[in-house]
Amino acid sequence: MSSIYRIDIGRKKVTVEDVPEIYRHLGGRGLSAAILLDEIDPTTDPFSAGNKCIVAPGLLSGTLAPCSGRLSVGGKSPLTGTIKESNSGGLAAQKLARLGVKALIFEGEPNREGTLIKINKRGIEILPGDAYRGLANYECVKRLREQFGDRIATITVGPAGERRFLNSTVAVSDMDGIPTRQAARGGMGALLSSKGVKAILIDDLGTSIIQPRNFEKFKKACSVFVRNLIDTKQILRKFGTAGVLNPVNSVGGLPTRNFSRGQFEKSQELSGERVYDMIRERGGEGKYAHVCCPGCVIACSNVFVDKEGKSIVSSLEYETITLLGANLEVSSLDEIAKMNHRCNDLGLDTIETGVTLGVAMESGLVPFGDAQKASDMIEEIGKGSLIGRVLGNGAVTAGRVLGVTRIPAVKGQAIPAYDPRGLKGTGTTCILTPMGADHTAANCLPGRGGVDCTKPDGQVALTMAIQALVAVLDTLGLCIMTGSDPANDKFLAGLMSGFTDEEWTGEKVMEWGKSILRMEHRFNEAAGFSSAQDQLPSFFLTEKLPPLGHTYDVPYEDAEKAKRNLMEERGL
Amino acid sequence: MSSIYRIDIGRKKVTVEDVPEIYRHLGGRGLSAAILLDEIDPTTDPFSAGNKCIVAPGLLSGTLAPCSGRLSVGGKSPLTGTIKESNSGGLAAQKLARLGVKALIFEGEPNREGTLIKINKRGIEILPGDAYRGLANYECVKRLREQFGDRIATITVGPAGERRFLNSTVAVSDMDGIPTRQAARGGMGALLSSKGVKAILIDDLGTSIIQPRNFEKFKKACSVFVRNLIDTKQILRKFGTAGVLNPVNSVGGLPTRNFSRGQFEKSQELSGERVYDMIRERGGEGKYAHVCCPGCVIACSNVFVDKEGKSIVSSLEYETITLLGANLEVSSLDEIAKMNHRCNDLGLDTIETGVTLGVAMESGLVPFGDAQKASDMIEEIGKGSLIGRVLGNGAVTAGRVLGVTRIPAVKGQAIPAYDPRGLKGTGTTCILTPMGADHTAANCLPGRGGVDCTKPDGQVALTMAIQALVAVLDTLGLCIMTGSDPANDKFLAGLMSGFTDEEWTGEKVMEWGKSILRMEHRFNEAAGFSSAQDQLPSFFLTEKLPPLGHTYDVPYEDAEKAKRNLMEERGL
Repeated sequence: MSSIYRIDIGRKKVTVEDVPEIYRHLGGRGLSAAILLDEIDPTTDPFSAGNKCIVAPGLLSGTLAPCSGRLSVGGKSPLTGTIKESNSGGLAAQKLARLGVKALIFEGEPNREGTLIKINKRGIEILPGDAYRGLANYECVKRLREQFGDRIATITVGPAGERRFLNSTVAVSDMDGIPTRQAARGGMGALLSSKGVKAILIDDLGTSIIQPRNFEKFKKACSVFVRNLIDTKQILRKFGTAGVLNPVNSVGGLPTRNFSRGQFEKSQELSGERVYDMIRERGGEGKYAHVCCPGCVIACSNVFVDKEGKSIVSSLEYETITLLGANLEVSSLDEIAKMNHRCNDLGLDTIETGVTLGVAMESGLVPFGDAQKASDMIEEIGKGSLIGRVLGNGAVTAGRVLGVTRIPAVKGQAIPAYDPRGLKGTGTTCILTPMGADHTAANCLPGRGGVDCTKPDGQVALTMAIQALVAVLDTLGLCIMTGSDPANDKFLAGLMSGFTDEEWTGEKVMEWGKSILRMEHRFNEAAGFSSAQDQLPSFFLTEKLPPLGHTYDVPYEDAEKAKRNLMEERGL
Repeated sequence: MSSIYRIDIGRKKVTVEDVPEIYRHLGGRGLSAAILLDEIDPTTDPFSAGNKCIVAPGLLSGTLAPCSGRLSVGGKSPLTGTIKESNSGGLAAQKLARLGVKALIFEGEPNREGTLIKINKRGIEILPGDAYRGLANYECVKRLREQFGDRIATITVGPAGERRFLNSTVAVSDMDGIPTRQAARGGMGALLSSKGVKAILIDDLGTSIIQPRNFEKFKKACSVFVRNLIDTKQILRKFGTAGVLNPVNSVGGLPTRNFSRGQFEKSQELSGERVYDMIRERGGEGKYAHVCCPGCVIACSNVFVDKEGKSIVSSLEYETITLLGANLEVSSLDEIAKMNHRCNDLGLDTIETGVTLGVAMESGLVPFGDAQKASDMIEEIGKGSLIGRVLGNGAVTAGRVLGVTRIPAVKGQAIPAYDPRGLKGTGTTCILTPMGADHTAANCLPGRGGVDCTKPDGQVALTMAIQALVAVLDTLGLCIMTGSDPANDKFLAGLMSGFTDEEWTGEKVMEWGKSILRMEHRFNEAAGFSSAQDQLPSFFLTEKLPPLGHTYDVPYEDAEKAKRNLMEERGL
C-alpha cells in the first residue's frame, strides 16, 4: 500500500498518511491537481506558506508498463500564477512508486535551508544540506553519489531554483546517474527550493515491481502497447525529437530571430537528421536511441558528443535546438549543446532561456547569432549578477526590463518552439491549457489528426482531444512520446483495465482526462484567470510571419466556447 | 460647443468630432472610462495599437467652480493592466476646456516619434519634437516656453515615459510655469509616449470662461462650496497634505522600512508642522498656502526651499515624504525634497519610486537610511542603466528581479503611504478600486466618517461611499482635496444643478459616481480581473505591524460582496 508523505522542513516534520479513496486512481498530474484544489487557496502567493509543492510518480510508475517513469512536480507556479504540473523522465518516479510513495507534499513556511531528503525502505529523513548549497546540478549529484552511493536516484534543485528564479527547474537523474532530465517549466525549482529542499535521494533497495490487480490482463495490455510503440516510433528512435525540425520548418512555423520568421535558412544544420549523422560520425560516447528511464521502448533520447567523442549533453532535444538555435540565429549544434548542458547544470528551462535570450537579442543587449555572448548571458544567470537576475526570471520580466514589447509568452510563460502562426493547433494549446504556454499539453504537429496545422479549421477540437489524452498520460506517468493521438485511448483503457481489474473503455479514458482538465481550470478560475487571459500576444495576430505569411487566425470565440463546453460537461 | 479630437500621430491625422449626447454630462475620469469601454478591447496589450490614451479636462474645468482644474489622463495601464485614470492639477485642464476640448484621444500604432501637439483657438497641429526628445521635464518646458511663449500651459512626458518605463508620469505645468504637477500613477507617461507624444502645448488666448446653463444657480452653488472650503480646510492650507503625517504615524500606519513598521522614530522631522516651520524659517522663495491652479481656494501646495531660500521642489507632499522618507528610513526633508524634484523632472511617480526603493533596500542593494545612494538610484533610472531599468519599471518588477517577496503592491501598482494594517479603510480602497493600489480613489484617513481606521468594522461601507463620491469629483475635474466626505454630495449636487439647469440631488450624485465605478469594473472584468485579484500581498494579513501589532483583518468576503452589490445595482 502506498502512502502520502507530508514534509514540513521548517518544522522538521514528516507525516505519513493513508491515501484517501478518492485519490486511489490518481497519480502524477491528476493527483497533484486534486491535492492542490483540495488543500491550497488558489489566490495564495506562490512563495508563501499557503503554497505546496507536490512530487508524485505516475499511477503506473513502478509497474511493467512501458515508458511509465514520468515524475510530476506540481504547485501554484511562481512564473504563471496558474496551477502547474511539470514532469520529467529519469529514475525517480519508478523508485518512489516502488517505495510506496504516492506523493511527497512539501508544505509550510518558505525557508532557505536547502536540506536533503533521504528516502528508502525505512522511511524519510531530513538531513542538513549545507555542503551542497549553491552547487550546480552535475557537481551536486556527483558528490551526493559519492556520499550516499551509486544506487540513489536524485531529484535536485540547481542554483537557479535556489535563487528563486522564475525560470528554474527540478532535475532528475537518469540511468547514467546524471541530472539531465528536467521538470522544466513554470519555475518548479524555485518552488521546491522555497520549501527548503536542495535534493531528494531515493534508494529503492529491497522493493519490487508494483503489481496490477489483474496481472494477465495488464501484461497483455502492455504487450499490445509495446508492439504499437515499436511499430510506430522508429523515426523518433532514430532522429530523436529533433526529427520534427524539418517538418516544422517546412510549414513555416520554426521560431527564428525572436519569433520574427518561421523558417531558418540554416535549418539543415539543426535538423534531427544532422544530429543523428553527427552522433554517428563522431562516435565515442555518442548515442542515439538512448533511453532515459527503464522500460522505455521508444528511446528518443541521445548523448550528443563533441569532435573528440566526449559527451556534451544528454539529451539534445528539438525545443532546445530551435530556441537556443534558430530563435537566436545560432546554427552550431555544438554551441547549442554546450548551452543546453549549462542550462541543465544550473537548473534552467531551455525553452524559457531560449525565448528570454531571443527577447534580449531583440533589445540589442546581445547580437543575434552570437553564441558566445548568449553563452556568457547563461553564465551571468548562474552567477546571479544583475543582468543574470533579469534574464533568470524569464522572458516576460526580461522583456519588461529591457523594453521589448514583442514577448512570446502566454500567462507569463514562454511559448515553446512552435510559432502559433504556423502550428495553429499547438498555438491554441498554448492559450487553452491551464499551464500557460506549453506544447506538452497537446502538441499538434504537422499532419496530426489529419488537420492542416497552418489552417484555422479543426485546431480547437484537435487540441481539446489531445489535451484530455495527455492529462491521462501525465496522470499515469506515461511519457507523451508514447503518442498523444486521441486514438491511443484504447491502449490506455487496456492498461487501466488490467491495473484496476475494472472495465475501462477508450471513452472512459477521455472522460477521465477531461475531468482532470476541469480540476485544473477550476483552480485557475479561483486564482483569477478567465478567458480574457486565454490569448496570444497581439503580434501573433497582426504580424505576418515571413516567409509564408501566416498569422494566428483561430477565432478566440471558438477556443472560449470549447473551454466553456468542457467545464459544463459532467463526465467522471 | 466642445469637441472630441482624435490624434493619430503615426498617420499625422487629427479628426474633430462632435460630442455624442451620451458623453454630454461626462468629463475627466468618467468620460475616459466611457470612451475606453466603448472603443477599446479590454484585453488589448497596453503598448499596442489597440490601446488609446485619453486626455480630458473635468466637466467643470474652465468654469468658475473652485478647484476645478484637474486634468485626467486615461487608458489601459501598462503597469496594472486595468483601466486607469490618473489626474493632475496645473493649468492644462482649464485651458483645454476653454478651447472647447472635451477630450484628446491619442490612438493608432505605437511609435517613437516624440512629437509636439500644439493646441490653440485655431485648432490642433502636430509638430516635430526632435529637439525635445530625451529632455527632462524642467529643461523641456523651459525650452518650450522660450520657443512658444510664456502663455502656454504644457503637458509633457519625461525621460521615464520616453523609455516606456512602467513607472512614468505625465507632467502638467503649474501657475509658475514649471512642470511640477503630475498625473503620476499607472505608467500613463509611457502610454502617452507610446502614442508619439513628447509634449502638448496649450494656448487659450482669445477664449473665455465656460458658462453654465444657469449662471445664477451655479454662482450661488460655487459660493456655498467656496465658503465651506475656506471654513474647513485651514489645516490643509497651513501644513499641506503632510499635515496627516502625525495622525497616520499615531495610529501606527506610517509605512516605515519597506512597510515593516508602522511608526517612524524620526517622524517629527518629516511632519507637516516641520515642513511649515522650515518654509517659514528659511524664507526666500519658500511658500506655503500655495495654489497649483487658478480658482483654488484650498492652497495645500507649497514651495519647499533650501537653507539659502532657493526652491528645491514644489510641492512637497505627504505621500512623497513618507515613501521617500520613513519607508527608506530617511529623515531629512532636504534630501527627500531633492529626490522629489528629480522624480518630477524625470517623470517618475514618487509613490512607485519610494516603494520600489524600499524593496531595493530590503534586497540589500542599497542600505536603509542612505539618502545619497537612494538618490543615485534615481539617477540610474534617469540614465536608463540596467539597474535603472529594473527600478524604473516599478516595485513588482524590481522585487521579482531582486528576489524580494515582500512587495507592497496590488494589481501591479505600489501601495501608497498608508499601511493597510493601520489604515484599514484605505487598505480596502487599494483592493477594491478599479485602479490598482491607489489612495486617491478613497482615502479613509484617521477619523474619517466616524470609523476607527485601525478596526475592521465599517471600512468596506466607508470606502465604497467615498469611492463613488471621488469618481464624481474626478469626473467634474474637482480636486479631491475639496473633500471626499460622502456628506459633500450636496455641494456637488448644487454645482451640477447650476451647470446643467437640471435638478440634481446628493443621492443622484452618488448614483452617478457608482455608475462610473461600474463602467470601470466592467472594463476590468473583461480584461480578466476578478475578485481573486482584489487582495493584498499576504504579509499584510500575517505579519503583525510593529509597534502596535496591527494586521489587515477586514474580511475579503465583505469587500467582495460590496463590489458584487455595486455591480448588481442599476442606478443611473
